[in-house]
Amino acid sequence: MKDMGKPLIQPPKGFRDFLPEDMRKWSYVVSILRRVLESYGFEPLETSSLEYEEILAGKYGEEGNKLMYRFTDAGGRRVALRYDQTVPLARVVAQYGDKLPMPFKRYQSQSVWRAEKPQKGRYREFVQCDIDTVGTSSLMADAEIIACTLEAMRTLGFKDLIMRINDREIFSGVDSKYLGTLDKLEKIGKDGVIAELVEKGMSKTEAQKLLDSMLKKEPTQRLKELFSYLETYGLVEGQDFEFSPTLVRGLDYYTGVIFELVDRKNLALSLAGGGRYDNLIGIFANRAIPAVGISFGLDRIIETMDERGLFPKGTDSPTSKVLVTVFDKNLALQSIKVASALRSADINVDLYPNEEDKLDKQLKYADKRNIPWVIIIGPEETAKGSVKLKNMASGEEEILALEDVVKKLS
Amino acid sequence: MKDMGKPLIQPPKGFRDFLPEDMRKWSYVVSILRRVLESYGFEPLETSSLEYEEILAGKYGEEGNKLMYRFTDAGGRRVALRYDQTVPLARVVAQYGDKLPMPFKRYQSQSVWRAEKPQKGRYREFVQCDIDTVGTSSLMADAEIIACTLEAMRTLGFKDLIMRINDREIFSGVDSKYLGTLDKLEKIGKDGVIAELVEKGMSKTEAQKLLDSMLKKEPTQRLKELFSYLETYGLVEGQDFEFSPTLVRGLDYYTGVIFELVDRKNLALSLAGGGRYDNLIGIFANRAIPAVGISFGLDRIIETMDERGLFPKGTDSPTSKVLVTVFDKNLALQSIKVASALRSADINVDLYPNEEDKLDKQLKYADKRNIPWVIIIGPEETAKGSVKLKNMASGEEEILALEDVVKKLS
Repeated sequence: MKDMGKPLIQPPKGFRDFLPEDMRKWSYVVSILRRVLESYGFEPLETSSLEYEEILAGKYGEEGNKLMYRFTDAGGRRVALRYDQTVPLARVVAQYGDKLPMPFKRYQSQSVWRAEKPQKGRYREFVQCDIDTVGTSSLMADAEIIACTLEAMRTLGFKDLIMRINDREIFSGVDSKYLGTLDKLEKIGKDGVIAELVEKGMSKTEAQKLLDSMLKKEPTQRLKELFSYLETYGLVEGQDFEFSPTLVRGLDYYTGVIFELVDRKNLALSLAGGGRYDNLIGIFANRAIPAVGISFGLDRIIETMDERGLFPKGTDSPTSKVLVTVFDKNLALQSIKVASALRSADINVDLYPNEEDKLDKQLKYADKRNIPWVIIIGPEETAKGSVKLKNMASGEEEILALEDVVKKLS
Repeated sequence: MKDMGKPLIQPPKGFRDFLPEDMRKWSYVVSILRRVLESYGFEPLETSSLEYEEILAGKYGEEGNKLMYRFTDAGGRRVALRYDQTVPLARVVAQYGDKLPMPFKRYQSQSVWRAEKPQKGRYREFVQCDIDTVGTSSLMADAEIIACTLEAMRTLGFKDLIMRINDREIFSGVDSKYLGTLDKLEKIGKDGVIAELVEKGMSKTEAQKLLDSMLKKEPTQRLKELFSYLETYGLVEGQDFEFSPTLVRGLDYYTGVIFELVDRKNLALSLAGGGRYDNLIGIFANRAIPAVGISFGLDRIIETMDERGLFPKGTDSPTSKVLVTVFDKNLALQSIKVASALRSADINVDLYPNEEDKLDKQLKYADKRNIPWVIIIGPEETAKGSVKLKNMASGEEEILALEDVVKKLS
């Protein structure tokens, strides 16, 4: 009611539309992720967008309870929108039981909803892409998730990525209230960490000692085993992955190996992260079900690919190779025939859908849509049984028989 | 609280999960629709799942107001979940204005939410696939939508489909309260229609006369023009499309040509439907914007394809060609090497992610996942530098060098 004069014509804050050029980038990224994940045997899964509130409530700590979209449905039941893809996976594992193969390897790429304060690059509805292996505590599963994540990201064109790896075991004996600070080492540096530890109540000497002791840690036994698997995948320590004793990743969730994919030149740029969590998936099935997984930060991946020019040329252009224009009402049938013939030759064609618009307007439309070729079929061309083909980049025009157009555009 | 002893491990009524075998069918259908729609120049669009309530409220009649999922968000704003894809399209057209090409041809395939009474084949969350052409009142646009719908459905393997076509103009002078009854002709027959018209207050003679007069109607001028376009697309009247003077399709929405894709042998099986609606898209832009579109009933399409065996063999199987088993912890590295080598040769491989499970369990997993081949790498095979390849259908086993496995599986 505040903006009575100005009609509301946008989605709520933190929500977005994906226009065609955005959609093409998303499709490109998701199709490559799918291809690589499937080559590793991960299976697609999608879950209901709404869950009963009792399924989700209390699973994400205080913050989650606050940020979750929940409401009472028309039947008086409390429901909530998907907040992540892990709790729904736990519900699916309990619900379908033996119907699923076990171990269950799945990928899932759907929207999640969180009422966070909207800011640059942070949305209230965003797509997560998760891969998880459920039902095995073998480090082979952890290694596979790391290997296929690196392969997927390299297939997208990323170079200089490194998987930072740690083991939650390394923090045994460290008060959990200090972990968040240790995790910030790459962002705020040693002095920053020490200052923050002091703020949290340590003496400067204690803080220095804690940080030093963490940095001197050796990989745990299971990390050594994991690293030998990774090397068998052809990955190189110090180049593709590294032991990162100050990597923390959340406080309560993970139970073993944890990992985070960052840019080697910018350790604060995190593009994917995950780890082993052996206590969550079994909550609805009432038995222990070990699991390990990773979540891709798709928005940040796409933003970074944009900045670095990793999208192949033309990714954001339409697949239409040619616009067939319509000269006038009398010649409309001619344009339909030409468009159909080109489509039969597997050429994607946009036929301008209005015989009353001037040719000039139709050419502007081709330009705006980034369609590289235009076909003009006037009375002259029709009489000769040919068409005029215009190259939109050079402006060059040729009169050609239809079969020559097919050859040129195929 | 009613089922305190029984934990809730399913989504709310009318909501669904898509397990891997479901997902593969959906992906198959959606990828074919996309390919055909893009070959006609339609562009992908996705809109926010939440809209301000005032955008959606009042746009879908009384029923829509009742069935819409709406609630107050954490910031106290009234919001609603997407109820269809047309009102959001109208909002997008107003919001992005000149950023969009005009005419704007888009397809959109996203979930919509409606709190209908759940029943077989009807869900509260379901995916719609819509194509619409906005910004032209030319019948070329109507013809294009009809032609590309028929092509898409035929590419999916449907035969014997016919597009029933009518013009809302044909009902001018008929009291709109009778239209819903006329529309039921295919379902309830002539006698049924007359009985229902009588129930609605007509005399039997009047009812008979109305039905006869409708059935004697000739195509309007614009239908004749539309049909000539369709014929130019190679479509045949009476086989691919037909004039259906009792087709009504909703009461308030459409303003011109309307159409519905049905099975020629079962006119009550509607797989897609749409028409021209020149008064809706402009509501937020405050100007008249003509539009025409169609909506595919994806759930019914997939169900029908299942019944008729239209999915190519293996659509619901995983893309994994082979499971690489793990003999024991010592040989795990060997299995990783073989799996990686096969993947390098572009073969989709599932590597069993647990070296502690018995071979028998691993074979059962391959069987459950429908993976056609299994590789076994024991100490003997490793010593010889070869692997054992098992055909899961025949049970046959061969000892082969890895390069011969690649040849066999490629």
